[in-house]
Amino acid sequence: MKTDMATNTVRTMRPIRWAMVGGGRGSQIGYIHRSAAMRDRSFDLVAGAFDIDPARGAAFGAGLGLDPERCYRDHEALFAGEAARTDGVEAVSIATPNNTHYAIARAALEHGLHVVCEKPLCFTVAEAEELQRLAHGRGRVLGVAYGYSGYGTIEQARAMVAAGELGEVRLVNLQFAHGFHSAPVEEDNPAIRWRVDPRFAGPSYVLGDLATHPLYISEVICPDLKIGRLMCARQSFVASRAPLEDNAVTLMEYEGGAFGTVWTSAVNAGAIHSQKVRIVGSRASLEWWDERPNQLSFEVQGEPVRVLERGMPYLHPEALAEDHISVGHAEGLFESWTNIYGRFAAAMRATGRGDAATLAGLRYPDAAAGVAGVRWVENCVRSADAGGVWVDYR
Amino acid sequence: MKTDMATNTVRTMRPIRWAMVGGGRGSQIGYIHRSAAMRDRSFDLVAGAFDIDPARGAAFGAGLGLDPERCYRDHEALFAGEAARTDGVEAVSIATPNNTHYAIARAALEHGLHVVCEKPLCFTVAEAEELQRLAHGRGRVLGVAYGYSGYGTIEQARAMVAAGELGEVRLVNLQFAHGFHSAPVEEDNPAIRWRVDPRFAGPSYVLGDLATHPLYISEVICPDLKIGRLMCARQSFVASRAPLEDNAVTLMEYEGGAFGTVWTSAVNAGAIHSQKVRIVGSRASLEWWDERPNQLSFEVQGEPVRVLERGMPYLHPEALAEDHISVGHAEGLFESWTNIYGRFAAAMRATGRGDAATLAGLRYPDAAAGVAGVRWVENCVRSADAGGVWVDYR
Amino acid sequence: MKTDMATNTVRTMRPIRWAMVGGGRGSQIGYIHRSAAMRDRSFDLVAGAFDIDPARGAAFGAGLGLDPERCYRDHEALFAGEAARTDGVEAVSIATPNNTHYAIARAALEHGLHVVCEKPLCFTVAEAEELQRLAHGRGRVLGVAYGYSGYGTIEQARAMVAAGELGEVRLVNLQFAHGFHSAPVEEDNPAIRWRVDPRFAGPSYVLGDLATHPLYISEVICPDLKIGRLMCARQSFVASRAPLEDNAVTLMEYEGGAFGTVWTSAVNAGAIHSQKVRIVGSRASLEWWDERPNQLSFEVQGEPVRVLERGMPYLHPEALAEDHISVGHAEGLFESWTNIYGRFAAAMRATGRGDAATLAGLRYPDAAAGVAGVRWVENCVRSADAGGVWVDYR
Amino acid sequence: MKTDMATNTVRTMRPIRWAMVGGGRGSQIGYIHRSAAMRDRSFDLVAGAFDIDPARGAAFGAGLGLDPERCYRDHEALFAGEAARTDGVEAVSIATPNNTHYAIARAALEHGLHVVCEKPLCFTVAEAEELQRLAHGRGRVLGVAYGYSGYGTIEQARAMVAAGELGEVRLVNLQFAHGFHSAPVEEDNPAIRWRVDPRFAGPSYVLGDLATHPLYISEVICPDLKIGRLMCARQSFVASRAPLEDNAVTLMEYEGGAFGTVWTSAVNAGAIHSQKVRIVGSRASLEWWDERPNQLSFEVQGEPVRVLERGMPYLHPEALAEDHISVGHAEGLFESWTNIYGRFAAAMRATGRGDAATLAGLRYPDAAAGVAGVRWVENCVRSADAGGVWVDYR
Repeated sequence: MKTDMATNTVRTMRPIRWAMVGGGRGSQIGYIHRSAAMRDRSFDLVAGAFDIDPARGAAFGAGLGLDPERCYRDHEALFAGEAARTDGVEAVSIATPNNTHYAIARAALEHGLHVVCEKPLCFTVAEAEELQRLAHGRGRVLGVAYGYSGYGTIEQARAMVAAGELGEVRLVNLQFAHGFHSAPVEEDNPAIRWRVDPRFAGPSYVLGDLATHPLYISEVICPDLKIGRLMCARQSFVASRAPLEDNAVTLMEYEGGAFGTVWTSAVNAGAIHSQKVRIVGSRASLEWWDERPNQLSFEVQGEPVRVLERGMPYLHPEALAEDHISVGHAEGLFESWTNIYGRFAAAMRATGRGDAATLAGLRYPDAAAGVAGVRWVENCVRSADAGGVWVDYR
Repeated sequence: MKTDMATNTVRTMRPIRWAMVGGGRGSQIGYIHRSAAMRDRSFDLVAGAFDIDPARGAAFGAGLGLDPERCYRDHEALFAGEAARTDGVEAVSIATPNNTHYAIARAALEHGLHVVCEKPLCFTVAEAEELQRLAHGRGRVLGVAYGYSGYGTIEQARAMVAAGELGEVRLVNLQFAHGFHSAPVEEDNPAIRWRVDPRFAGPSYVLGDLATHPLYISEVICPDLKIGRLMCARQSFVASRAPLEDNAVTLMEYEGGAFGTVWTSAVNAGAIHSQKVRIVGSRASLEWWDERPNQLSFEVQGEPVRVLERGMPYLHPEALAEDHISVGHAEGLFESWTNIYGRFAAAMRATGRGDAATLAGLRYPDAAAGVAGVRWVENCVRSADAGGVWVDYR
Repeated sequence: MKTDMATNTVRTMRPIRWAMVGGGRGSQIGYIHRSAAMRDRSFDLVAGAFDIDPARGAAFGAGLGLDPERCYRDHEALFAGEAARTDGVEAVSIATPNNTHYAIARAALEHGLHVVCEKPLCFTVAEAEELQRLAHGRGRVLGVAYGYSGYGTIEQARAMVAAGELGEVRLVNLQFAHGFHSAPVEEDNPAIRWRVDPRFAGPSYVLGDLATHPLYISEVICPDLKIGRLMCARQSFVASRAPLEDNAVTLMEYEGGAFGTVWTSAVNAGAIHSQKVRIVGSRASLEWWDERPNQLSFEVQGEPVRVLERGMPYLHPEALAEDHISVGHAEGLFESWTNIYGRFAAAMRATGRGDAATLAGLRYPDAAAGVAGVRWVENCVRSADAGGVWVDYR
Repeated sequence: MKTDMATNTVRTMRPIRWAMVGGGRGSQIGYIHRSAAMRDRSFDLVAGAFDIDPARGAAFGAGLGLDPERCYRDHEALFAGEAARTDGVEAVSIATPNNTHYAIARAALEHGLHVVCEKPLCFTVAEAEELQRLAHGRGRVLGVAYGYSGYGTIEQARAMVAAGELGEVRLVNLQFAHGFHSAPVEEDNPAIRWRVDPRFAGPSYVLGDLATHPLYISEVICPDLKIGRLMCARQSFVASRAPLEDNAVTLMEYEGGAFGTVWTSAVNAGAIHSQKVRIVGSRASLEWWDERPNQLSFEVQGEPVRVLERGMPYLHPEALAEDHISVGHAEGLFESWTNIYGRFAAAMRATGRGDAATLAGLRYPDAAAGVAGVRWVENCVRSADAGGVWVDYR
C-alpha cells in the first residue's frame, strides 16, 4: 500500500546542494529541517553558517560531517564563499531569529539561491512583497516553513472542499493554543526570551508564531476564501510581555459571507498544541487536529461522524500520493515536513528548467504564502492596537 | 458509594403540589420537566394547562392520571381555579413558547405561586427585572430551567475554581454549536419554525436558545467574573432567518482582565451538541463537554492531563452530594435536571419558612440568573446590530 | 424528536402495585430499582421488606411515604400480608444478597406474584430451571435485572446484526473489568465483603457479578449464537478471596464456528467500568462501551469508522422507540433501567391478559436469561476448577 | 526541548557501511528500513540485492544512487562481492519473505556481518538458537526488526514498571488485531498471498506476523515475567487459509502468578491496527496504543486517569533520551524505527570494540528477542494443534 518514495523518478535525480543559516546547537527546528530535506535525498547538506558563534557553528558542522571550510562564520561569508565554487550550494534554509529573516533571505536571493525561510518571512508586508518580487525576478523559489501543511490529511481536506463534499463553506474555525508559557518562563530560558521581545520577534508573538500555521492550512483547504475585514483582540496575561500578546482572538469576515475565528495562545494552561482546523459547510464539516494527524473527522449533517484514516483507499488520490508507510502505522510531523521539502525540491527543479506546467501543479508554501502570513499579522495588530475594531483587510 | 436520595431528610417531606403550563403533546421538554420534578418526590403533578388546544391538553392530562377538572383550558383558568382550592398548587412550571413567558410568569407570581420558567425568562431586561422584583416582593421562588447546570461535574469545576486549583482565571471559552438546522428545516417543522420567528422567539435565536446555557454554567463556575464590555457578530446563513441569527460569536472583556469567547450555532454541520466550557487559569485549565457529562478534563500546566470521573472520592464533597448512582454507571441529563428541580424544591420550602440560612447555601438558576441571560442577549444584539462593535455592558 | 413516554397508551394504564424485598438503606441498587420502576408510572411502590433489620426497614419505608403497616419484617410477612389484602401487590423486586434470591423468588412465585430478581437468579442451574418452571406454571413473569441491556444502542446493535449489516458474526469480545477491588477493600467494607464470600455470593465473584452483564447483552445482539464448549481460567489476585476469583478469562467456541472471549475483573487497576462489547462480522464490526452509552462504533472494513449517536433518525426504529430525550442530550443508566422496567410491566400486563402476541414482541431479560447466566457461570467454574480445560457446554 | 540527535557524540562517527537483501520495489517495509537506518547517519547504504529479479533489483539500486556494481543478483553474490572489497559492507538488513530469513541470516553471519533481520527470525527454535550461537561466536550483532518497540512511550512504560509505579504486575493484555484481511484478499494480491502460505510464512500467520510485536513490547516493559505455560486457540475464518490462522487467542500463566492474554487477528473487520498493550499492576495500570503512540494512559486506582505525553519533562529520562522533536509535535513510526536502528548501530560499534559496558546499557531487539518470538509461536502452535490445551512452555 505504501509508495516507496525513494524510487520515484524525481528522487533519482541528483540531490540539490543545500546550506543552512542557523539551526545549530540548541535550535528547536534545525534538526527537522535537515531530517526532512535529506530524508528522501531531495537535498544534500554541504555548507552552513549554523551559529552566531562561529566556532560553535563550525564544531556543529563538523559533527554533521561537513567539510570544515564550508562551515562559514556568517551568512555573508557563506553566500560569497559558495558563489565562488563550481559546486556551490543551490539552495539555503534560514532558521534564525525572526528579525534576521528579511536581510538573510534578500541576500540569498540576490546571490541567486533558492530560499526556504522560517516563518514569519519578515515583519512588514512591504518587506515581504519586496522579497516576493526579488524571487520572481531572479527566477528563484522562496518557500516558507509552514511544516504542518504537508500532512496527507490536509490534502484530503482540500480535495473534499474542492469536490463540494462540504457544500458551501460557511465557517472556518482555527486555533493553535498551547499552555507552555502560562508562567513567565522566558525569564530563565533564552530560547523563549527573544520570542516575546519585539526587537527580535517583530510586531507579534502568538499571532505570528502560532496562528499563521492554521491560517495557512485554511488557505490550502479553502483557496477561494478572501478576507474582507477582520478584528483582533490581543492580551498579555504575563504583563511583562506587552506589547506582545500571549493570547489573541481574531474574527474574520470573508468576502461572500463566510465567517472565521482564530484563537491563538501560549497561556492555554495544560494544553499541548490544540492546533485544530474546523471547516463548516452547508452540508458537512471537517475537523483536523495536529496531535492526531493521521485522522480527519468528517461530519455530514444527519449522518454518523466518520473518522477518515490516512492511507485508506477511500481517500482522494492527492491525499495518498505522498504516503510513506501503509495505513495504521502512525506518520508524524517529520513526514509532513519531508513532503513539504520534497515539494520545495520539485519546485526548484521545475523553476530551474522553466517548467511552468509542473509548477502549476505543485502546491507548497511559497512567497505568496509568506506575504499572506505577514499581511494577516499586520492587519491583526492594526486592529488590536486600535482597540479591537474591525479593519478593512489590506 | 451512592447517596440514596429518596431517603434524605428533605425528601421525606410532602411533595410540593405542582402544575405545568405547556409541555404537552409534541413538546420537546415537557417530559424532562415532569420526570425531573417527580423523580425524587420533590413535586407532585396535580394540575395543568398543557396545550393551546384545551381538548388536547385535557386528554394529555388524563393520560398522566390527573383529575379532569384540574386540566385547565389556559393558564388564567389554572391559576384562578387552583387559587380557589384548599389543596391548590403551590408551584408552576412554564414550558410554552418564549413570547408568552413574561405574561404567564407574572400572572403566576401575582397568584402567589413559585415559578420555574423555561429560558429565556422574557425578551427585555426591563421585563426580567420586573419579574425578579415581583418574586422578591411576594416571597416566591422564580427559577429558570438551565437544566445542564445540575451535573456534579459542574459543581466540581466550581469548587476547584473556588479553591484556587486553576490559579487566576484568565480565559473563559464557551460554545454550544450544533448542526441540526444547517438547512431550512423550519419550512417543514412547526416545532422549529417559531424559534426563528422574532414574534415568538424574541430578539435572537441561537444566542438566547443555546448560548445562555454555557453562559450560565460559566457564571456558576466563575461567580466573580463580571463582564465589562462585549462585542458580538451574528450571521443568518439560512437567509430567511434574518434578522434572527443561526450563528454568532461573542467576545467578552471581564473586569479585572479575563477574556471570554462564546461560539453558538445551529449550522455547525454534523455536530451533535458541542456544548463545551473551558476555563483557563494561570496554573491549570478545566474542560467540560455536555455529551460526556460524567467526565471533566483537568489540565495542570506541566503535568499529565487528568480525566476526573463523577462519583470518585477524590472529588470535592459538593460534586458528590447529589450522585444518584455509583461511579462508572453513566448519569445523564435527567439526573442533572433532577438535581436542579431538587434544589428548586428546597428553595421553595426554605422560602416558605423564611429560612435565610438554607437559602444562602442553595445554588440554583434563580431570578438573577434569568435576568443575567436576558441582559447578555440584549447586549449581544445591541453590539451585533451596530455592526459588531464593542459595547459597554449594561 | 423525543417520544413523550408518559403519553403512551400503555402508560395511561394503572401502575402495577409493587413491593421490594431488600434495597433499603445502604443498598447500591435499591434507588435505581425504584427510580426506574416508578419513572413512567409503570409501577407504584406500596409495600416492602427493605432490611434485615425490621425497624430500620420500617423507617426506610416511611421515608418513602409508605403505609407503615405495609412495611414488613421480612419477605414471608410481606407475601402473606399482601395476599390477605384486596389491594395487595402484584409484583415484587428482590434486591438482597445472592444467597437469598432463590428462596425469596420461589416464595414470591408461589404466592402468585410477578418477580424481578437481581442477578444471579440463584446458584445452580437446577434451581434456576425450577424457578423458570414455577413461573411458567403459575403464568407469572420472572425478570432478571440485567439493567445495562435497556440502552437504545443495544437495540440498534441487535437490529444491525439481524439485518446482516455485519455479515456473518465471527467474534464476540466481551469485557467488564473494573479496578475498584485491586486492594482487599472488603476488609473494611461489609457491602463488598459478602461478594467475595461463597456463602453469600455463590460459586463465583466477578464471573457472576460482572461478566453475566455483557454476556446477556451478547445474547440480545446475537440471539442465534449457541455456545458449544468453553474454557475458563480464573485467579484470586487478592489471595484471601480464593476460591472466589477477582479476575477471569473465558474462551467460547460457538456452534457454527464463531469464537468468543470474556475478560472480567475487579483488579483492573484504574479502570472505571470497561464494560465493552465488540461484535466482529465478516463485513463489519460493532463496539459498545457502557461508559459512553449514547454512542456505538460501526466499523465497516474498508470504510471510515462511523460513530452512531442515540436518537438520530438513521437508526433502526427499535433503537428509537424508547428514547426519552432528543439526540445530543446524554441519556444514562437510569433510562436503560427505566426501559427494562417498562418492558417488565408490559410483559406482566400481557401475561395477565394472556396476550401471547404482545409477549412475543417483547424483549426483556426473562427467566430464560436468568437460567442462561447461571448456566454460564456453572460451566466456567467447572472448567476453571478442572485447571482451565475445555468443557462441553451443558 | 529537543535533543538534536545529529549532534550526539555517537552520531559524529562514521556511518556503518550497510547493505539490504530484499526491500525493493513493492516491498512494504524496505523504505522504512532505509529511512530509519540512514536518518541520523547511523548507516550508509552502499550495496544491495533488492529483488528476486536481478534486473529489477539493479534498477532499484540505481534509483537509490548506488554504484551499479554493488547491486548484486542475490545475497550470496552480495556477501562474496563485498567480502572481496576493502570498503565492503559491515552490516546487512534482511527484508525478504519469512522462509528465506534463516539461510540468509546464517550466510551473513558466516561472512562476519552484523545482521538486522525481519521477524520472524526463522521457523523453529532450533534454527533460531543456531543463529544466536553463530552471532555470539562470531562477535556480531543479530537484531530483529521489532520496529514498534522504539517509541519513547515504551521506554516510559518500562521505567515506570521498574520503579514500582504499578505495584506488582498482575495482568498483561496484548492485542494486534486488524481487519484488512477479513475477505480473502490474497486471491488478488501476491504481496499478501505468501503470508498465508505455510511454505513461505512458516507455521503461523497472525501469531508470528502480528502478535510477536506486542509480545516483544511486553518483554521490554516487564523483563521479569517468564511464561510458565500457555494455551492457544486459533481459527481460519477464511477457510482457504487453513492450517494458518487469521485469528488467535493465547492465554499465558507467568511464573509467579501473573496472567496474560494475547488477541491477534487479521479479520477484526474495520479495525486499523488495534495494537494495544495494557499492563495491570496491584496499584496502577498502563495502556499503550500504537495508533496514538505519543500518549500513554496511566491509571492509578482511586485517582484520575492521566494521559502522559511524549516529550514532557515529567517523564523518566530514558523516555526522553531519544526524542526527535519537542512535545506536541507528533512523532510516528519512523522515529521509533530510527531509534531502534540507532541502537543497532551503537551495539555494532560497541561489539566491534569489545565494549561490554556500553552493550550492557543498550536495549534493543537482539538475538534473544528473535529466539523468544519464534519460541512463543512454536508453543502457541503446539497448543492450538492439540486442541487448545495448556502446554508447558519450553
